[in-house]
Amino acid sequence: VKEKLSGLDLNAKPVAFVAGGAGFVGSNLVRRLLAEGWNVFVADNFSLGSADLLDSVSANNSLEIVEADLSLRTSALECFSQCARVFGDIDDVWHLAANSDIPAGVTDPNVDLKDTFMTTFALLEACKAWDVKNFHFASSSAVYGQWDGEAGLSETLGPLRPISNYGAMKLASEAQISAACEAFLSRVNIFRFPNVIGTPATHGVIYDFVKRLLDQPTILQVLGNGTQQKSYLHVSELVDAMLFISQHDSPSGGYPQILNIGNDDDGVSVKFIAEQVVKEIAPLAEIRYGSESKGWIGDIPRFSYNTDRLKAIGWRPKLTSKASVERAVFEIASQLK
Amino acid sequence: VKEKLSGLDLNAKPVAFVAGGAGFVGSNLVRRLLAEGWNVFVADNFSLGSADLLDSVSANNSLEIVEADLSLRTSALECFSQCARVFGDIDDVWHLAANSDIPAGVTDPNVDLKDTFMTTFALLEACKAWDVKNFHFASSSAVYGQWDGEAGLSETLGPLRPISNYGAMKLASEAQISAACEAFLSRVNIFRFPNVIGTPATHGVIYDFVKRLLDQPTILQVLGNGTQQKSYLHVSELVDAMLFISQHDSPSGGYPQILNIGNDDDGVSVKFIAEQVVKEIAPLAEIRYGSESKGWIGDIPRFSYNTDRLKAIGWRPKLTSKASVERAVFEIASQLK
Repeated sequence: VKEKLSGLDLNAKPVAFVAGGAGFVGSNLVRRLLAEGWNVFVADNFSLGSADLLDSVSANNSLEIVEADLSLRTSALECFSQCARVFGDIDDVWHLAANSDIPAGVTDPNVDLKDTFMTTFALLEACKAWDVKNFHFASSSAVYGQWDGEAGLSETLGPLRPISNYGAMKLASEAQISAACEAFLSRVNIFRFPNVIGTPATHGVIYDFVKRLLDQPTILQVLGNGTQQKSYLHVSELVDAMLFISQHDSPSGGYPQILNIGNDDDGVSVKFIAEQVVKEIAPLAEIRYGSESKGWIGDIPRFSYNTDRLKAIGWRPKLTSKASVERAVFEIASQLK
Repeated sequence: VKEKLSGLDLNAKPVAFVAGGAGFVGSNLVRRLLAEGWNVFVADNFSLGSADLLDSVSANNSLEIVEADLSLRTSALECFSQCARVFGDIDDVWHLAANSDIPAGVTDPNVDLKDTFMTTFALLEACKAWDVKNFHFASSSAVYGQWDGEAGLSETLGPLRPISNYGAMKLASEAQISAACEAFLSRVNIFRFPNVIGTPATHGVIYDFVKRLLDQPTILQVLGNGTQQKSYLHVSELVDAMLFISQHDSPSGGYPQILNIGNDDDGVSVKFIAEQVVKEIAPLAEIRYGSESKGWIGDIPRFSYNTDRLKAIGWRPKLTSKASVERAVFEIASQLK
């Protein structure tokens, strides 16, 4: 633990606790919060994330990073206590800790139970104990399940029938947060994340394709037949949207604000992504497709978002899904090369 | 454990595993399943239920009752194993185990986590291990949260924002069951229970009123101002609906069937219930009301159901909310006197 200034300059800053702050989205959020003048306490189990992702800001006195298993109540409470000692009372909790390896959770539901749901449960217990009122949660489009023929998934859809344990535990988290909102929280945002891309990438379709092609530059084997079509959002825009919403929301009156964040365009196909990666890494490689329209159990082959609520608040993305993919392919190729 | 016949007559019967079968709804379901020719294996932690509730059928060789904490994976697996030894492979799991003391769960969320959600989680793990395909779950209207001005809550409403940990853990259970349906279950019904009344009562507003008035026959103190208005269903009708649906459903194609069960009338007020109880127990008692429109955190002051889906399947209740309350008051008074 690096030495901290104890001066007024730190104490005057608001304090953000970022669970999962060393992950892909988390590390981007942390950098943005620091830039906007927050003290930021990061707790992460470093299972998929890594303190390395925060190297560029590790010297910043307004940042504290600890390794912790937030699925344990005692551990969550200890982190809150430590944050209070370093920066003072927590103003906002940003909960981005989760298992992000969806197939792993399909194989063993305990992975999502522990890393996705129990982190939520324990963080809420800690918020109650420490009287923290503001809670922002990274939910997911995976809560919707598969809606064939539904043009754009809106927040008012029901019933929700997630098809992966990942989606199930995100929905379970939403439910528990909702009850906590009635009982003791006062400002709550539940962000239903889209497919998010960019760097520092730790997983995901572009990351996989780039890695495979760097290993074996002549062939790119694609799981599924390549027709899976999804919309994508660049991580810089996701973080921008979260901050924007957190600055434009209002006391929730006992309810969480639930919002889709994403592009509402038709998205791009896996084929398009594969072609972009090939163009960037190994233009002569052959792309081989599978025969299934789905990649794996829990995968959603087609999906597009309705983001009318988000637009009504005043935020919309600058990049299309296509432009986001092109940018992310370039960035991830640079990261992994 | 009583001696079992090992003859063909038992082996020819289908096998139902009823989690929470010694509770209020569970014991009614068990009696009905026995009457319809099932072998029934009951596992219950006897926290709110009791083997006494099954006294009338305890001599039946098609019934086995064990005490078990189904929130533990090992315990759920052991129960499935025991059921297989006694009756053979399980055909249908009926999951009615839950914490039914909603205020207790508001005070300590671990109660609902363990008894309502972890029972679901562990039972699904056991179903996967034992290749059980048919799963029926007792969910609740509490998953909806509060919808002011919504005439009738339908299954297509969203987003769901439960206001009690009880409702949250029922919704979490729905989510996990939905993912299991995609992965390994093949016939799944999720019943969203209404307010259910009847005997053998273990809790609930009528039970409370009757008990209080038997203790103190001159005054009935009512939590809240009495205007809370809800629809009620008699437990005999609920069980009838569940059986009907389970006999008229079809393989779910990867999705659970989610259905409201209940009356779709305007319901009755707490005031009406209080007056019925007073009339039955102590006609001269004074009824004193509180000033709040809600009874406690997590209570829903007004609620009515849309049951169009249920009617489309071909089931509708015979008793109105009013008639159900009148019958239940009489029955519960007889039970407790």
